[in-house]
Amino acid sequence: MDQTAREAPSKSLAILVLSGELEKGLAACNLALAGAASGGRVTLFFSFWGLNLLKRRKATIRGPLLTRVLGRLNRDNVDHQTLGRFNMWGLGRRALIRVMRRKGMASFHESLTAAHELGVRIIACSTTIELMGLDRGALIAEVDEIAGAMTFLGESESGRSLCIS
Amino acid sequence: MDQTAREAPSKSLAILVLSGELEKGLAACNLALAGAASGGRVTLFFSFWGLNLLKRRKATIRGPLLTRVLGRLNRDNVDHQTLGRFNMWGLGRRALIRVMRRKGMASFHESLTAAHELGVRIIACSTTIELMGLDRGALIAEVDEIAGAMTFLGESESGRSLCIS
Amino acid sequence: MDQTAREAPSKSLAILVLSGELEKGLAACNLALAGAASGGRVTLFFSFWGLNLLKRRKATIRGPLLTRVLGRLNRDNVDHQTLGRFNMWGLGRRALIRVMRRKGMASFHESLTAAHELGVRIIACSTTIELMGLDRGALIAEVDEIAGAMTFLGESESGRSLCIS
Repeated sequence: MDQTAREAPSKSLAILVLSGELEKGLAACNLALAGAASGGRVTLFFSFWGLNLLKRRKATIRGPLLTRVLGRLNRDNVDHQTLGRFNMWGLGRRALIRVMRRKGMASFHESLTAAHELGVRIIACSTTIELMGLDRGALIAEVDEIAGAMTFLGESESGRSLCIS
Repeated sequence: MDQTAREAPSKSLAILVLSGELEKGLAACNLALAGAASGGRVTLFFSFWGLNLLKRRKATIRGPLLTRVLGRLNRDNVDHQTLGRFNMWGLGRRALIRVMRRKGMASFHESLTAAHELGVRIIACSTTIELMGLDRGALIAEVDEIAGAMTFLGESESGRSLCIS
Repeated sequence: MDQTAREAPSKSLAILVLSGELEKGLAACNLALAGAASGGRVTLFFSFWGLNLLKRRKATIRGPLLTRVLGRLNRDNVDHQTLGRFNMWGLGRRALIRVMRRKGMASFHESLTAAHELGVRIIACSTTIELMGLDRGALIAEVDEIAGAMTFLGESESGRSLCIS
């Protein structure tokens, strides 16, 4: 990985995911998969609502009452996301997922796992984790690292960067 | 890497448009126009809701019932977009358009056409087209190519990339 | 990664902020602060709804009735932003701010001021200022420049660019 990055620095790709919406998650995974397939170092950095995409289905939230109340509301996770438009209380979301399945397209969780298996680094934002009262155990196993904005900028240093928000 | 990229590598600009909202479309066009005016290679890649910005006013949607029902809901197109904030059932959108016209600013469709005439490449995402049950005939004439994420990454390889989502 | 960052001076970072939502503003500031801390030239360019983040609490809006009516609606400013999700008429926003304060995290305005003091350039989009009927006096003192898309592209020419939208 590091070797490749040093040999072809322009190929690396660092994606900052600030949104937890289904379509944004799918776009991030598709770009990561395309980047990994073309042989470059790829990093997905999930922050703020984007962190929901790395949360286990039943994530434990620790901290004062207010943090736990917010956590109750914000319950999207790696297996369940809201659609940014036409969600219609889950109807639009389910319709999209059904259309995708019929066409043989992978779900978000499947795409993320595939990306991880292809060597895409998955990083969870440390500030967001603290803010949301989560810990490592609340996140899926595919998370490679918990780090801050500095790490994202470091990853973007030698190549391309995108922010999906 | 092709000839053009080797001659002016730092100047190319690849913009991924994931949103179909009016203000996002306008921002994408303004950046593309500025990029083209400064002489660099510019690519606009429209994916997911962003594809709406390339749809003709009366686009035919093919496929099973569910796809056609979703297409009925998602009827924004090159001449009609929703505003991301203060749309207020079209009132905010129309107010913004009126203010822009008074100030002599171009509409989204006009800006996109101008960008195309200045040499900006307009690419429609192939996956989204399949997902939405569209075909080439449903898209405006200015579309130069139908391609996937790999093509967008290729365009961003030798220069700057932005994602407007 | 750290090695590379120490060897060569950090590349420049240009961030385009198209959204005025609280979480997007915080993300922009965090990235800018991290970029400035690593020694690179950093520019924050605020356009469209993002310009709200540079508006004084009591900004005067000039122009015809329609512009002033829109300005009345769009009253978010440097000290008051809406949360993109779970705003719940300000309840979610206030809860987030309280949790952040308890954890000793800086507010948006404090972060922006800190970024400015560290040398981050703060640019307001000239087109948006005209569109919204604002002038220099309506913006906070930290604004270094009023400029167009061309200036943003120029800043992104020699380094990384991100769009937070």
